Amino acid sequence: MVTEIGIVRSPYTDRLHTPVQSSLNTGVTAELHVHPRHRIALDGLDGFDHAWLLSWLGDPDDDAGRPLRNVPFLLRRAPQLIGAFASRTPTRPTPIGLHLVRVVDVDLATGVLSFAGVDLTDGTAVVDVKPYVPAFDRTPEVGRSGWYEQIDLLEGATPASLEPPVGDA
Amino acid sequence: MVTEIGIVRSPYTDRLHTPVQSSLNTGVTAELHVHPRHRIALDGLDGFDHAWLLSWLGDPDDDAGRPLRNVPFLLRRAPQLIGAFASRTPTRPTPIGLHLVRVVDVDLATGVLSFAGVDLTDGTAVVDVKPYVPAFDRTPEVGRSGWYEQIDLLEGATPASLEPPVGDA
Repeated sequence: MVTEIGIVRSPYTDRLHTPVQSSLNTGVTAELHVHPRHRIALDGLDGFDHAWLLSWLGDPDDDAGRPLRNVPFLLRRAPQLIGAFASRTPTRPTPIGLHLVRVVDVDLATGVLSFAGVDLTDGTAVVDVKPYVPAFDRTPEVGRSGWYEQIDLLEGATPASLEPPVGDA
Repeated sequence: MVTEIGIVRSPYTDRLHTPVQSSLNTGVTAELHVHPRHRIALDGLDGFDHAWLLSWLGDPDDDAGRPLRNVPFLLRRAPQLIGAFASRTPTRPTPIGLHLVRVVDVDLATGVLSFAGVDLTDGTAVVDVKPYVPAFDRTPEVGRSGWYEQIDLLEGATPASLEPPVGDA
């Protein structure tokens, strides 16, 4: 079973207006409120500049209804079907999101992790936090990015901003 | 619910002798065998040089028994308690592992993803695959790595090789 270890408190309440990637929204901060029984697990995280948040993005019972290919938000203006394992779409067999954030503050007493880089809606459940270890997580060189190389990654892009303009064919 | 989407076929059958991080074992290859119903989700992954595998590392029923701080394998010779959220230990509230691998080949027909960089034991369940997108996953600079900066990250290190020598105080 996945275990909810905390809840995100973010300025975004509506998924359509939440930026689609934390790296495209590094100027905004939010908080993870870790539940009391899991707070001690934050011990040592303040020594890291970055961390991964693993979020739970789906209704746990709707696996059967999730398509295995879909059109990512970032391709809405030039629709193309992409496999879920070749995309960061929230619509995937196990609906876990992976979010790279910058650690701003860790308060063991209150269980509040403040972070910069926000692509999470207020109230999202978090199931794990991992330290970002450059020796493990940062490839030696920038590699190929598949279909992401075809698009402009605009700062602060949201599902709403990526919708095709009304009237498009 | 997490959904098992495939199984790892790796040369390592014993966790004690499996390298602790894929980035410390990039010369070895292994395969992810994706289950038939999920194979189409690999469509497009061959355009990426790297990918994340999310593995399921635990007995789903043993959450209550998992300590929230422990001594990571990499600190066995100089024991120090580290919070689970400040470590990549498999012993964590939601036992999901995050593995950065190099994509060697993607075969949509057979569902076999061949990859380099192996820290997974044969038979491990995989619950998600995500493309590595440098713009999202690669920090602009190498940041602080907390307690990992105190240790030598040796190529191919395993839990067995990291045990203190017999006779240590």
